[in-house]
Amino acid sequence: MSEFDTSLPSVRNIQNFIQEKNEVELKLVTDDLIVGKIVWQDVNCICLMDHYEQPTIVWRQAIVFIKPKP
Amino acid sequence: MSEFDTSLPSVRNIQNFIQEKNEVELKLVTDDLIVGKIVWQDVNCICLMDHYEQPTIVWRQAIVFIKPKP
Amino acid sequence: MSEFDTSLPSVRNIQNFIQEKNEVELKLVTDDLIVGKIVWQDVNCICLMDHYEQPTIVWRQAIVFIKPKP
Amino acid sequence: MSEFDTSLPSVRNIQNFIQEKNEVELKLVTDDLIVGKIVWQDVNCICLMDHYEQPTIVWRQAIVFIKPKP
Amino acid sequence: MSEFDTSLPSVRNIQNFIQEKNEVELKLVTDDLIVGKIVWQDVNCICLMDHYEQPTIVWRQAIVFIKPKP
Amino acid sequence: MSEFDTSLPSVRNIQNFIQEKNEVELKLVTDDLIVGKIVWQDVNCICLMDHYEQPTIVWRQAIVFIKPKP
Repeated sequence: MSEFDTSLPSVRNIQNFIQEKNEVELKLVTDDLIVGKIVWQDVNCICLMDHYEQPTIVWRQAIVFIKPKP
Repeated sequence: MSEFDTSLPSVRNIQNFIQEKNEVELKLVTDDLIVGKIVWQDVNCICLMDHYEQPTIVWRQAIVFIKPKP
Repeated sequence: MSEFDTSLPSVRNIQNFIQEKNEVELKLVTDDLIVGKIVWQDVNCICLMDHYEQPTIVWRQAIVFIKPKP
Repeated sequence: MSEFDTSLPSVRNIQNFIQEKNEVELKLVTDDLIVGKIVWQDVNCICLMDHYEQPTIVWRQAIVFIKPKP
Repeated sequence: MSEFDTSLPSVRNIQNFIQEKNEVELKLVTDDLIVGKIVWQDVNCICLMDHYEQPTIVWRQAIVFIKPKP
Repeated sequence: MSEFDTSLPSVRNIQNFIQEKNEVELKLVTDDLIVGKIVWQDVNCICLMDHYEQPTIVWRQAIVFIKPKP
């Protein structure tokens, strides 16, 4: 389980991606790379919205890395 | 272990999928993609019912993402 | 670590499989699918008995899903 | 982390394998299957001795299942 | 979840890599090897900056090993 | 997270490998096998020194087994 404290850099960075509507790449343990805008996060999950406005609720345990699109 | 607090977006979203009988796709760490309607969730598992009314009890630790079918 | 509270649906369902001697399929993180009857569960493991009355003690952390055989 | 309480079936079963010097198969998350006699267990690890009296200290987190050799 | 106590060798070593701007290799559970300079760490994540000054926020749970480049 | 209590066999064994400068094989979840001498351990990591005196900081969560070289 992740710690979910809004003063942590990891939590704040994601909060910034949400506010600034940054497009991000999310690499998953299955080696999938999904792309979209993060719309919310909680202690268990991060929700990504793709180009077709379809949400994907990603479990934090399955995340390998997040990269903001340059 | 996941946190199971019904005020969390991740828990509420799944609760909505149950109530609205949304069909969802569940991606698993084994790269399997299973499709069905969620019938219950608890702190350990999510139970999916397929088209033949057969249940699959999925461990939360094995979930990568959930996508409601558009 | 799983929560092991007998009032949870996930724990009760497995308890029912034990009492009713249901045959189940257990999908594991290694992609193995093992078949048998569950004979006991505790907070760490689930024990499956195959057709030759050979036990397999499966770690909960390695379980992806359980499906009762129809 | 596993619970390590000697009254648990999973812990007692392994204690029996140690005392009765049962040969066991250990399936690991890397899909390796190692064979030997368990010589000790603690909350983190299980130690297996092979035919050449070489020990392997296996992390519990990496165990998928244990099967006593028939 | 990792322990995040700055007196631990693992946390201090990474703190040193940050201060000395060491280039490191990070091996991930997906078998990816990413190279860069660590710019921050918290209890959940480690942030790596690549040659193009692009950040990658890596989840600790997905790290296999870190090697400073010789 | 592992328990890190120096009275545990798993922690003591590694402490012995450090003191006796035993060469060990470390099998990782990515199926890598790395060889070297353990130079320190803490609750999160184990540090291995290879033949070229290059350190590798291995996350405990990624360890499958340790084998002392015979």
